[in-house]
Amino acid sequence: MPNAPTDPVTLTADLVRCPSVTPEEGGALVLLGELLSKAGFACTRVDRNGVSNLFARWGDKDAAKTFGFNGHTDVVPLGDETAWTVPPFGAEQKDGFLWGRGATDMKSGVAAFVAAAVDFVTDTPPENGALILTITGDEEGDATDGTAALLDWMRDNGEAMDACLVGEPTCPDTLGEMIKIGRRGSLTAWFTLTGEQGHAAYPHRARNPLPAMARLMDRLASHSLDSGTDHFDPSTLAVVTIDTGNPATNVIPAQCRATVNIRFNDAHDSTGLIGWMQGELDSVAQEFGIAGEMKTKVSGESFLTPPGPLSDLVAQAVQAETGITPELSTTGGTSDARFVKDHCPVVEFGLVGRTMHQVDERVEVAQIPRLKAIYTRILRDYFA
Amino acid sequence: MPNAPTDPVTLTADLVRCPSVTPEEGGALVLLGELLSKAGFACTRVDRNGVSNLFARWGDKDAAKTFGFNGHTDVVPLGDETAWTVPPFGAEQKDGFLWGRGATDMKSGVAAFVAAAVDFVTDTPPENGALILTITGDEEGDATDGTAALLDWMRDNGEAMDACLVGEPTCPDTLGEMIKIGRRGSLTAWFTLTGEQGHAAYPHRARNPLPAMARLMDRLASHSLDSGTDHFDPSTLAVVTIDTGNPATNVIPAQCRATVNIRFNDAHDSTGLIGWMQGELDSVAQEFGIAGEMKTKVSGESFLTPPGPLSDLVAQAVQAETGITPELSTTGGTSDARFVKDHCPVVEFGLVGRTMHQVDERVEVAQIPRLKAIYTRILRDYFA
Ligand SMILES: [Zn+2]
Ligand SMILES: [Zn+2]
Repeated sequence: MPNAPTDPVTLTADLVRCPSVTPEEGGALVLLGELLSKAGFACTRVDRNGVSNLFARWGDKDAAKTFGFNGHTDVVPLGDETAWTVPPFGAEQKDGFLWGRGATDMKSGVAAFVAAAVDFVTDTPPENGALILTITGDEEGDATDGTAALLDWMRDNGEAMDACLVGEPTCPDTLGEMIKIGRRGSLTAWFTLTGEQGHAAYPHRARNPLPAMARLMDRLASHSLDSGTDHFDPSTLAVVTIDTGNPATNVIPAQCRATVNIRFNDAHDSTGLIGWMQGELDSVAQEFGIAGEMKTKVSGESFLTPPGPLSDLVAQAVQAETGITPELSTTGGTSDARFVKDHCPVVEFGLVGRTMHQVDERVEVAQIPRLKAIYTRILRDYFA
Repeated sequence: MPNAPTDPVTLTADLVRCPSVTPEEGGALVLLGELLSKAGFACTRVDRNGVSNLFARWGDKDAAKTFGFNGHTDVVPLGDETAWTVPPFGAEQKDGFLWGRGATDMKSGVAAFVAAAVDFVTDTPPENGALILTITGDEEGDATDGTAALLDWMRDNGEAMDACLVGEPTCPDTLGEMIKIGRRGSLTAWFTLTGEQGHAAYPHRARNPLPAMARLMDRLASHSLDSGTDHFDPSTLAVVTIDTGNPATNVIPAQCRATVNIRFNDAHDSTGLIGWMQGELDSVAQEFGIAGEMKTKVSGESFLTPPGPLSDLVAQAVQAETGITPELSTTGGTSDARFVKDHCPVVEFGLVGRTMHQVDERVEVAQIPRLKAIYTRILRDYFA
């Protein structure tokens, strides 16, 4: 006789009650570690630089096939706390929804794959198969010591997955409509232009960095990076801020700053884009006789897991459970899949993400067991 | 036997000791009012909206010729107070200089013309001639209730000058080298562009005002307004600030602001320039599908007192006292001559202005009596 199934709704509520705003662990990983250990998973906390991470394995290291799930238990801050109509960590259920910070992003996703994994290894333990769950407490923050730390630790300890599913919310409106098979890269550049301060009445004695900044931002923003690729929308560049902070209308400022964020597809890599921006910066700086500086941060390169066995596996399970044929998409922001893709084929599938990061974040209760069912079918089909 | 001459150095020092940072009267106008009253000037305080102004007349309203001097006793703030090497209101004399805030701009100039006027009417009272001194406590501030208030009051009271000399420091390096016969106009425009906020990963769902602002500022800054006129340098446009204040690199901001300052010659008036900027704003706003708003403030239209009797009078006096032939210039910032020009021909002549508005402002002591001598000669020649 099989054990009582693990209820992913109760587990989601338990997790929402853990106030795990990045980088607080908040009790979430401890709770999952206990649950997984009881089900026979070997659990290791892989904490690094104050960030908490959980590694859980079921089965042997030398199993023929190892399937992985990845997710995060940390959540973004509450935002305007007074605007919440429910206690943000209360996990209240009303109107068919479970309410609270992290309800969609992504404690329900973690609860669904943990519940699926626990019941799967308990009820139908795969022969010569293994499961690895990597769950981080730093996806919403810098992410430098989160999934990246888990993967570093796995490399150092001879741990490997053959395929991995990230349980982020991927569906815009309806459960089942979208699988992510890649993500655009993200790159931020900070520009500082420096001239020479002076009086607005004598501009020839000053060197104003602002016309140069206007020219540079116009050039960057009006440049078409590409017109999309087979699996990606066109790359985009957003000027997100230009600042000077000069309160005096009769003073020409010495310096101004601007920040640019690029979301790029697989027609580019960060090195090429940085080189292009450096070239535009140098050219404008020379044109205007001012000094230009650029600092950059690459949040992730673009990546693609081309349609194939893993996306087919997930798509077929989604289709079977929901009746919907999911779109294979590469839209949206970055996720920890950008780290996993260097380790093994990775795709992302999860719930409807509409209220993620918002006040009154909530998840439709009925969809959590449906997601668990999809994850369970994926495991069954994978090890079949 | 003539009276003892009025010492303009002592008077400068007495004025510097009055802490008359705009809009504080600081005792300066009271002091001058007493001195002028004693010499037979009819003094009237023409205060308006908390700003102190002094009107002083010697001679009859229906005199054949009335000469005017204009100046201000208010001073700019101290700036970095700890950087001063002397007490800023101490009027110390050392190394041949008199030190203190307002020493050059323009308490020495006021002292020189008050001393010249007092001694002139005492020693050689002009037959059928009159003098009017207008001294304001609000030149460095908004100037809306300073010389403008004095001229309003004069109009209402049937007071008129036939010519006026503003005693601002006009010489870049050497006493005598420059008379100002006009000034460029000054116009400030504040731009606000408003789009729609969004996530940097989905720029097509937002409307970013920053590329539009970059384009607009580039267009304005790279436009050549003119190449100078007979008596004026080319007009200039300075972008003085662009600000957004968006701290999040993954957020497209809804709004940004920029400020532009134009110094324009007699090829333009403010109406034409505002119309031009509005046109560029409208065109960019339409191009980018965002909302644009512009607010403007005209500090003064450009004006010119063409070379003629008044500039000849001043130039000849300067030449006689210094041996230098002064240049007739229209360079520099705005001054209260922009108000006086609507009343009568006006030129400006005064000391070397090098340290004006700076820490450790100071005036060469020996130049103050030389300026008094030039002003005295102007009065003598004017009424001859
Ligand atoms: Zn997430
Ligand atoms: Zn001044």
